[in-house]
Amino acid sequence: MSKKNLIAGQSGGPTAVINSSLYGVVSEAYRHPDQIGTVYGMVNGIEGFLAGRYLDFAEALPGDALKDLTHTPGAYLGSCRCKLPESLDDPMYPAIFARFEELNIGWFFYIGGNDSMDTVSKLSRYAEKIGSDIRVIGEPKTIDNDLVLTDHTPGYGSAARYVAETVREVILDANVYETRSVTILEIMGRHAGWLTAAGALARKYKGDNPMLIYLPETDFDQDDFLARVSECLEKNCNVVVCVSEGIHDKNGTFICEYDSSVGTDNFGHKMLAGCGKYLENLVRSKLNVKARSVEFNVSQRCSASMMSEADQQEAIMAGVYGVNSALNGTTGKMVSFIRRTDEDGTVTMECGLEDVNEICNKEKPVPAEWITADGTDVTDEFVEYALPLIQGTVEIPMGDDGLPRFASRK
Amino acid sequence: MSKKNLIAGQSGGPTAVINSSLYGVVSEAYRHPDQIGTVYGMVNGIEGFLAGRYLDFAEALPGDALKDLTHTPGAYLGSCRCKLPESLDDPMYPAIFARFEELNIGWFFYIGGNDSMDTVSKLSRYAEKIGSDIRVIGEPKTIDNDLVLTDHTPGYGSAARYVAETVREVILDANVYETRSVTILEIMGRHAGWLTAAGALARKYKGDNPMLIYLPETDFDQDDFLARVSECLEKNCNVVVCVSEGIHDKNGTFICEYDSSVGTDNFGHKMLAGCGKYLENLVRSKLNVKARSVEFNVSQRCSASMMSEADQQEAIMAGVYGVNSALNGTTGKMVSFIRRTDEDGTVTMECGLEDVNEICNKEKPVPAEWITADGTDVTDEFVEYALPLIQGTVEIPMGDDGLPRFASRK
Repeated sequence: MSKKNLIAGQSGGPTAVINSSLYGVVSEAYRHPDQIGTVYGMVNGIEGFLAGRYLDFAEALPGDALKDLTHTPGAYLGSCRCKLPESLDDPMYPAIFARFEELNIGWFFYIGGNDSMDTVSKLSRYAEKIGSDIRVIGEPKTIDNDLVLTDHTPGYGSAARYVAETVREVILDANVYETRSVTILEIMGRHAGWLTAAGALARKYKGDNPMLIYLPETDFDQDDFLARVSECLEKNCNVVVCVSEGIHDKNGTFICEYDSSVGTDNFGHKMLAGCGKYLENLVRSKLNVKARSVEFNVSQRCSASMMSEADQQEAIMAGVYGVNSALNGTTGKMVSFIRRTDEDGTVTMECGLEDVNEICNKEKPVPAEWITADGTDVTDEFVEYALPLIQGTVEIPMGDDGLPRFASRK
Repeated sequence: MSKKNLIAGQSGGPTAVINSSLYGVVSEAYRHPDQIGTVYGMVNGIEGFLAGRYLDFAEALPGDALKDLTHTPGAYLGSCRCKLPESLDDPMYPAIFARFEELNIGWFFYIGGNDSMDTVSKLSRYAEKIGSDIRVIGEPKTIDNDLVLTDHTPGYGSAARYVAETVREVILDANVYETRSVTILEIMGRHAGWLTAAGALARKYKGDNPMLIYLPETDFDQDDFLARVSECLEKNCNVVVCVSEGIHDKNGTFICEYDSSVGTDNFGHKMLAGCGKYLENLVRSKLNVKARSVEFNVSQRCSASMMSEADQQEAIMAGVYGVNSALNGTTGKMVSFIRRTDEDGTVTMECGLEDVNEICNKEKPVPAEWITADGTDVTDEFVEYALPLIQGTVEIPMGDDGLPRFASRK
């Protein structure tokens, strides 16, 4: 096969390590100059690429500058939320492959979550249909950790570390005063509770805060919640509770929707204050106790300071593995992680390959057996699972201004 | 003078380095065993002390454990919000001094903001009134940076670094998509805009995001705001705006109060969504653009990962300086910082002493000359002032669980 060029793209929501996966792909491509020519990046995913937007990594991040990707959150190439047409007869497919042809692309890497794997699925199937020998590989990415057929997903470890460390700090903050108080922490995760479950890692001993953890995998009962918060207040003056943004009652109504009776704002929009704010008000009014809520913000997916080194290194490893798999002829697969536990309990991750068609458009919830029977906590098995993923601190290079030096497109 | 014991207390809201000030006081006290006997800590400030709650640092944090204070946010000793009676004839004063007498206290250190300096003022005046030779020293602390007669206040540097770094990360996050968007960041500071102003440090070049910064020191005009956001959207697809929680219009009405027409929640409470949420809705409805808001949470005052090393070291220095001042007979003073700028621009901080009566119950706003005439930004002078305060990263010791190992009371 004659020498071909490689192109990589990013898609879906940003994470702390999506650029580390990109670094893995690009740096490994450079190690195979006999087979891979120019290494391109799609700007704003497949959508930007269709509009003719791409860059050459050798020009955009020459020499050592490429390494800055490994500590830069966000999505260096820019992202998109674009679902390709279901029918492979749609004219969008030949349009995309004409672009590939123009740039003499032989390898295409797409870094993203389950929607992005749908793109990988469709493009690899279209390639097969038209007899193109382009190799299409999916690189996993999501803070939600909800991809099937992989132990976990790059991006989750850093987000989980952010949650665990921030919950531990908020507990310090909550313990400052003697006044009885309840602090509700609302954590990202509409359908899967992996990130909220990471709040359990903040505990230093059994029974420590956060005393209650609620995931969207179980039904939330407001009366039961109030009774349990009351019990907790008997044991601990300052009670901290973690809730997923997506908790709902047994009828499927999101708890945040209970605020809908508040009506509309000045502009005619429904006010959606979030389930944390709702539960704060519920606790204050029903239990007559000081209450506050904190909505963990986008820092969950873009904090550099709390990046997990394990997560960063695995993201790079997945990129490297993907390139070598493609060079060996693999296509239509997503790189996955397989956990190996030694006799002494040491956990190591190996990469594998899974059929992308079995991954796209599916979601992996926290398993029922990792949630306590009463639905108010996670089990030790979850803690054992998650701990290896949050280990290690990445040293972030600082600029002259004393703030992190991030990679950015000109 | 015969050997006396020392007691230290913490008061008001927690910060990232209030425990570093405590470490400075306690570690320096240990260096003067000829003059200082036991080193005590009040638990939950003057309020807990009155109830007989205190600890002996030699038992609570023996040996190297004391050092853990320097990377532990929150308030190790616990805090209180307690205003002592105005009249020095109140029976609370002899009650406090009887406690001091019991423990043979010769030195009392109180770490806090302007309310806590009020306590220092009253107790030092009461000591003078009754002819007690107890030395009372205030150690400054507040993320708000609003204490007068000092260049800045320990706690501010770390909070400002949190804001600057997080704003820079949120900008990365905002730049991911091509869709035009406005992101409103609501930052702590009801009366003084020091912390919101730190958003300016996130810029990498002139005109970079955050494109607009609004402090409570100026009046906020909603129409002017919308016009400026529109202008910004002409230049930049993704606009990031920083606002203080305490911004208000020319009539003194807080912008967050404009949401009051929304009415009450299910429990009859007024919904207070914050000015960020209000402005998000305003921008979305009036400019027909994607908008979101992020309320920076308590991490502003309790993040260990983003602690500023300069802030930490200055907090320790202030504690050390206070002890030596007390040993020299000083009382009724607060430790202050004086800025020295060398010819080559190097900034160093020296400690000084200021009359606590001139500090308590006063607030220092951001000077008008550091705010641009149109009230939508801060000047380069502010950036020059704030940059030295956020420098340096503190290495946080990690426990077996891979999370920060913090000091805590048993």
